[in-house]
Amino acid sequence: MTDTLAPQAAITAPTAAMATAPTARTRVRRIAENARYDQASVHAIVDAAYLCHVAFHDGDSAHCIPTACWRRDGHLYIHGSNGSRMLKRLAVADTDACVTITHLDGLVLARAAFNHTMNYRSVMIYGRFETVSGDFERRAAMEALMEKIAPGRQSLVRGGSDKEYAAITVLRIALDEAAVKQRSGGPIDDAADMAVQVWSGELPFVHAHGRPVPDALSAAPAPAPSQVTGWHAESP
Amino acid sequence: MTDTLAPQAAITAPTAAMATAPTARTRVRRIAENARYDQASVHAIVDAAYLCHVAFHDGDSAHCIPTACWRRDGHLYIHGSNGSRMLKRLAVADTDACVTITHLDGLVLARAAFNHTMNYRSVMIYGRFETVSGDFERRAAMEALMEKIAPGRQSLVRGGSDKEYAAITVLRIALDEAAVKQRSGGPIDDAADMAVQVWSGELPFVHAHGRPVPDALSAAPAPAPSQVTGWHAESP
Repeated sequence: MTDTLAPQAAITAPTAAMATAPTARTRVRRIAENARYDQASVHAIVDAAYLCHVAFHDGDSAHCIPTACWRRDGHLYIHGSNGSRMLKRLAVADTDACVTITHLDGLVLARAAFNHTMNYRSVMIYGRFETVSGDFERRAAMEALMEKIAPGRQSLVRGGSDKEYAAITVLRIALDEAAVKQRSGGPIDDAADMAVQVWSGELPFVHAHGRPVPDALSAAPAPAPSQVTGWHAESP
Repeated sequence: MTDTLAPQAAITAPTAAMATAPTARTRVRRIAENARYDQASVHAIVDAAYLCHVAFHDGDSAHCIPTACWRRDGHLYIHGSNGSRMLKRLAVADTDACVTITHLDGLVLARAAFNHTMNYRSVMIYGRFETVSGDFERRAAMEALMEKIAPGRQSLVRGGSDKEYAAITVLRIALDEAAVKQRSGGPIDDAADMAVQVWSGELPFVHAHGRPVPDALSAAPAPAPSQVTGWHAESP
């Protein structure tokens, strides 16, 4: 994030391979020691997300659109109605996009005002989307989304019809040109400020689960699968 | 979000005034009944956020950058180092930006694959940033950020020095041209699918708080203020 004024604590020290940006525009300049560029770091942040923000310019304006995302191998996928202005624009091969995912992990309270910061894990992916075509590939992609949202559920629901599939566009972007930036740990204050008598440390956020809410419209509710029975208990 | 294929349940029915988009580019086309444009709806989503995603185009690429944000009256504020590429670009008066905030509230499991969706609250803000200038205004803005992150803390910490203030840029964007889109509630399936015997409903996410982690570097820790002692218990 660009907002962090404080010197930053790295989660783990990156190796040389992890620290090499794939392109000039992915190279993190500010607080570069918090950057990572390796596939495992990129995938971990994508896999922890249900949605991403997609930036693009349509010739008139910049747009930043939230949408569901998921990963298959080396690509991030999105989908939507064929009528979506975003998808129509992104499907044009020369539209540059930037996809960003950010998980906010905590507020960091320091002894000096300007050393306050946040802990987070973020990834920025640059490139151009391509349309996923062919019945087999499109179905495999959409079933992967279901598997992410609700593992094992695909066989239990009424699957997508030909008409439903015909109404959607599925796009993907390679995860090759990507930069991770993340911060963890407590505040880093200057030596001169260490004597300031104020509580300092981290106030963590937890990405927790609430109690499942069964649909009131179910006349004879089906038994809850393990994802549902375990949802609240699994909460960190 | 563009990914939601299902018909949508509105949180509350909007009034006519809430349903009028300020400009053509903010008018929500897809599932327009989930849109809101009134100030209270916009402010509620901004105030619940610690970070936003800022989209802009720098002439070469689209960018989507996560950064801390806060609100004062009718503006959203961001800040960062004077050296930040984003801030330098956004401070140029003709740079169009789009600022988006999204809170993910739940996964919605339906009886038909294509009716699965997510519950969320999002706001998109279009416009151009302006630089906040003048010592008084810059300090007031930064102290409002502190007040958001840690209410009452400003007087307890070592405040920003002239040198620290000289190194940062504070920008703001009016919340006038903004669109809210949100969804809540359970799945909406077609009548023909209501007999599918599968658990359906919402799996909620909770934006919870973990236990505060005091900075290990504090030789003689100061007493925790109420924000810290109440942080975990306040968790929803």
